[in-house]
Amino acid sequence: MHGGNIKEAIERYNLKGKRILDFSANINPLGPPDYVRDIILDNIDCIKHYPDPQSKELKTMVAQYLGVGEENVIVGNGSMELIYLITKALFHREGLIPSPTFREYESSLKSFGSTPRYLRIREEDDFQLYSDDIIKNLHRSKLLFLCNPNNPTGRMIGREELKTLINHTEKNGVFVVIDEAFIDFVNDAQDESMVNLAATGKNIFVLRSLTKFFALPGLRIGYGVGNSGLIRRLEGIRGVWSVNTFAQAVGSQVLKDKGFIKKTCEFIKEERRYLFDALSGFNSLKPYLSSVNFLLIKLIQDKVNSKYLTQALGKRGIMIRDCSSFRYLNSRFIRIAIRRREDNLCLINNLREVLDLG
Amino acid sequence: MHGGNIKEAIERYNLKGKRILDFSANINPLGPPDYVRDIILDNIDCIKHYPDPQSKELKTMVAQYLGVGEENVIVGNGSMELIYLITKALFHREGLIPSPTFREYESSLKSFGSTPRYLRIREEDDFQLYSDDIIKNLHRSKLLFLCNPNNPTGRMIGREELKTLINHTEKNGVFVVIDEAFIDFVNDAQDESMVNLAATGKNIFVLRSLTKFFALPGLRIGYGVGNSGLIRRLEGIRGVWSVNTFAQAVGSQVLKDKGFIKKTCEFIKEERRYLFDALSGFNSLKPYLSSVNFLLIKLIQDKVNSKYLTQALGKRGIMIRDCSSFRYLNSRFIRIAIRRREDNLCLINNLREVLDLG
Repeated sequence: MHGGNIKEAIERYNLKGKRILDFSANINPLGPPDYVRDIILDNIDCIKHYPDPQSKELKTMVAQYLGVGEENVIVGNGSMELIYLITKALFHREGLIPSPTFREYESSLKSFGSTPRYLRIREEDDFQLYSDDIIKNLHRSKLLFLCNPNNPTGRMIGREELKTLINHTEKNGVFVVIDEAFIDFVNDAQDESMVNLAATGKNIFVLRSLTKFFALPGLRIGYGVGNSGLIRRLEGIRGVWSVNTFAQAVGSQVLKDKGFIKKTCEFIKEERRYLFDALSGFNSLKPYLSSVNFLLIKLIQDKVNSKYLTQALGKRGIMIRDCSSFRYLNSRFIRIAIRRREDNLCLINNLREVLDLG
Repeated sequence: MHGGNIKEAIERYNLKGKRILDFSANINPLGPPDYVRDIILDNIDCIKHYPDPQSKELKTMVAQYLGVGEENVIVGNGSMELIYLITKALFHREGLIPSPTFREYESSLKSFGSTPRYLRIREEDDFQLYSDDIIKNLHRSKLLFLCNPNNPTGRMIGREELKTLINHTEKNGVFVVIDEAFIDFVNDAQDESMVNLAATGKNIFVLRSLTKFFALPGLRIGYGVGNSGLIRRLEGIRGVWSVNTFAQAVGSQVLKDKGFIKKTCEFIKEERRYLFDALSGFNSLKPYLSSVNFLLIKLIQDKVNSKYLTQALGKRGIMIRDCSSFRYLNSRFIRIAIRRREDNLCLINNLREVLDLG
């Protein structure tokens, strides 16, 4: 039900030994940086020791990277651990989830016996979410999950509008979890991020990830930012050693790599424009504007649905994300990650063939 | 508060650049096997993909290793993830913990708002725990955490006695979590383990770990065994991708290594006897019999306590585990892991010097 399950695709489409182009997982095509290999080699002998239970070095690097205090940072086994951890700490009876969005907020709430409520993000607005809508629909919910920029829509609520929302939630004792897993891909990410407000605010927890931007999903590295009391509370209710040795070692290094960060942002901006334009050229496709490294696309011809397209491309070794399992989306929607030009061209060519046949 | 924090020891005792002998973490001194390096090298390119969310290959290997069904196995980010996960799934008001024992059962219960209750394992019995005692003290507790063999005492409840206990708990609807993190070190481990009963029983979950036996604490690999319904329930309430790529790859291979397993068991048996005898030769030390790869030791001279000894050895680059933080133990107890002969000799020699000075 998530993107990026290569092994399953190999079995399903009989692709063993064939080249696979994975547009289903939103991973930076420029990564991981080459030197990650050396960091892993240098740390192999360390696996016979327990990892640092505090992830001190990585925490220091994250704090420097964001310009917040170390006491405002918690590191997790992917941001996934932190989604479940914050839900556990808050233990609210219900939480509001503007949707379509990443599925794990809902799963996390349900796993603790809490009730997820949903706010439909409107297709008529091209899936742009507005603060007013959220405020109007909070009702009794004292917990809000916000994926910003949002997965799978690629849309972002801008800083000023988000501040208005947070002004409201802080006044009304509503806790906001903002998942910024994709914000590093945004132009001027530091200006758009809410990490500074999270470090000083009462009721905000911001989630970030190294998975997507540095292309390290196999290592599991995520982090969160909140006020120091909240961070202490979170550290106090989880098991030790959740962040493995390689995650700590690699995470500490890649965040320093300003060159890679700049190059990625420029590359994604350029390639997003290219891919958006190319996809817009299809009569049968409607791509939505995106702030990040993936595009939501509507299939506007009745005869081709997401399942058909996913399978037709899958057989050709091209994985895309069928979005029919997302709440408030259906079999008219797919999501594709932005990759290198040659791969994007390959996708476009295959789409042309498949859609003509469809 | 746990053993094995090398970085902290380096800072505290100013050991940078010096050789450190870590007797504080209960890790197999023969591991990890050499080929683990190659497995990691072979899998570096895989970190740009998400790990298999089902850990299928590792699950298959664990099932083969134990002789249970794949549907009876769950893999975790260390057994730590599974301690918290089973506590979350059961959500009992209180749980009984025979103590002294591993601290995380208590932490896990508290983290979910449950109340830990304790049963004192008696020093007068040389810390041997008896089923009768547990049964008598269960009272209203419908959840029991049992570390078997127990950390830090090294003592084990034998199979027949454990069966009597489980017979009682199954009849009375008491759920038993048996942490067998160290059972692989026991002679005839397969006969002593409760994994088969866990796979078929109603109310048993057995925890195992690759951390200690294969010396891979930095990778984070644990697993659990229970009936298929329980395993499905556990899988349903946790976040995806908790087991990283290297943990899956290495875990799948080491369990096949019958040679390493046999060699370790023989080695530990031999070296445990040697170290036990050597420590028994000190007037000031009382080591307790152990089934596993570590020894609990009582300091029987008033003038030397665990803090003094831990610091005195620490300054010499030798880390031991001060057991004063364990419930029902005090500053008269330390724990040491069994290492290679030359290291054990080094410990003995240093103990001789320090205790003479003490």
